[in-house]
Amino acid sequence: MGKVACANVLSDLYAMGVTEVDNMLLLLGISKELSNDQRKVVIPMILEGFRDLAKEAGVTINGGQTVVNPWMIIGGVATSVCTRSEIIMPNQAVAGDKIVLTKPLGTQVAVNLHQWMSLGTPSWNIAKDLISAEDVVKGYDDATTSMTTLNLAAARLMHKHGAHAATDVTGFGILGHSRNLAEFQTAEVDFSIHTLPIFARFTEVCKQLIEKGGRNFKLLQGLSSETSGGLLVCLSAEAADKFVEEMRSEGGTAWIVGDVVPGNKTSRIADNPEIIEVSY
Amino acid sequence: MGKVACANVLSDLYAMGVTEVDNMLLLLGISKELSNDQRKVVIPMILEGFRDLAKEAGVTINGGQTVVNPWMIIGGVATSVCTRSEIIMPNQAVAGDKIVLTKPLGTQVAVNLHQWMSLGTPSWNIAKDLISAEDVVKGYDDATTSMTTLNLAAARLMHKHGAHAATDVTGFGILGHSRNLAEFQTAEVDFSIHTLPIFARFTEVCKQLIEKGGRNFKLLQGLSSETSGGLLVCLSAEAADKFVEEMRSEGGTAWIVGDVVPGNKTSRIADNPEIIEVSY
Repeated sequence: MGKVACANVLSDLYAMGVTEVDNMLLLLGISKELSNDQRKVVIPMILEGFRDLAKEAGVTINGGQTVVNPWMIIGGVATSVCTRSEIIMPNQAVAGDKIVLTKPLGTQVAVNLHQWMSLGTPSWNIAKDLISAEDVVKGYDDATTSMTTLNLAAARLMHKHGAHAATDVTGFGILGHSRNLAEFQTAEVDFSIHTLPIFARFTEVCKQLIEKGGRNFKLLQGLSSETSGGLLVCLSAEAADKFVEEMRSEGGTAWIVGDVVPGNKTSRIADNPEIIEVSY
Repeated sequence: MGKVACANVLSDLYAMGVTEVDNMLLLLGISKELSNDQRKVVIPMILEGFRDLAKEAGVTINGGQTVVNPWMIIGGVATSVCTRSEIIMPNQAVAGDKIVLTKPLGTQVAVNLHQWMSLGTPSWNIAKDLISAEDVVKGYDDATTSMTTLNLAAARLMHKHGAHAATDVTGFGILGHSRNLAEFQTAEVDFSIHTLPIFARFTEVCKQLIEKGGRNFKLLQGLSSETSGGLLVCLSAEAADKFVEEMRSEGGTAWIVGDVVPGNKTSRIADNPEIIEVSY
């Protein structure tokens, strides 16, 4: 949880191309339902995870706030003082650009399936016929790997390859965030998404969950919430190929998922998007 | 609540003498127990209060985060990029300095008494013989006035009168925060607090609550939590008089509450501190 929160907080700055972050604050709500013994285990682990990933990002944590709360809360604030050249303004996409996504989709599905299974909820009664326990754990592990990965490498490559615009994919899903990004463009363009990289096995599970009357995550409509998702980056066609290649050569993931086309600043997902099944 | 949160967030920067704040983020946890109708009333009022006081402080709010939570939460983050001269490092107190406090103590007492009375809690059964309903409301109103007052004027006067060190008085009470400040001094000094300005009527109520087996707020020991409390400022004796005078001439409050003496970086409150009863 600490690592996920840290990666998620930093991601907003990385989406602006800011790679040198000056300071972080840590915001922690400690559940009043934890026993003292549980606190002694859980809180140091969360803090350690947050600090470890901040260290990996080269950021110091100076300050924060801790409160007691019914639910656990973990978050933070990242600050950077930049020159103009350190920032990539996210409004320069032009028709002909390719759209790249740097992490697979489906973190919310992964976390929910794992929680349903762990707690034996009514939702698990529907899902257990659709996916094996082993695959739930594998999907959860893959999602955790993804959520705890910094978007720093992507931010650096945005500079190297002259990205035109970027955002990070979090609570509103890939469609929600690509709509926000499209609205913000200077040029009269649309974002057309034709490909969805999704954690392996989840596409079929999500389809069948809906058929069986289970929860509709809206994953294939691009509206499933993501936590600490990837960057969605617009680059020229040539730059997009190089960006994807270099992300992969550095051990990361990236896929060309769409096109910037002439339009009126909206975003849409193709009726039958190509699905890429991703497994780490 | 919005105004209190805004004043409280800004106070940390004001305690460092930073009067020009560049940006604020608003952090809001909306209680899941509020009905839709309640949300429509409560949330706009909180946002309006936060924005109004930010405007008074000359600060823009760019960004933030809203989550659903069992309890209401309201807070924020204030950021400023400063030159060295804009900051007053809080470590330059010397023996002979006077210590000034700019708001009365007792906000936690005020809020609790008011809540006990409103909800008719068991604590109110003890307190109701010690204070009238009218006085509870008056104390609550005075505390609200105090908590929604920016420490900006005090921060400006810290520069004008060459303050040597300051902190704001919040969760750890006047003694807790003065201990922290004392520890941080470069010189071998102690902080000796001889006077406690307290909202009218609360001193006697707090004493009697303890006698009757009610809650011990530790107000007279300087350990009662404050929310959006005043600044505790060390200045030369001559500067302290002028600081207090100017705070008052601007419609604010301020009292000389202690002395900086030779010592080993601790803080203490006199055995029988002088109590100043404060009423607006």
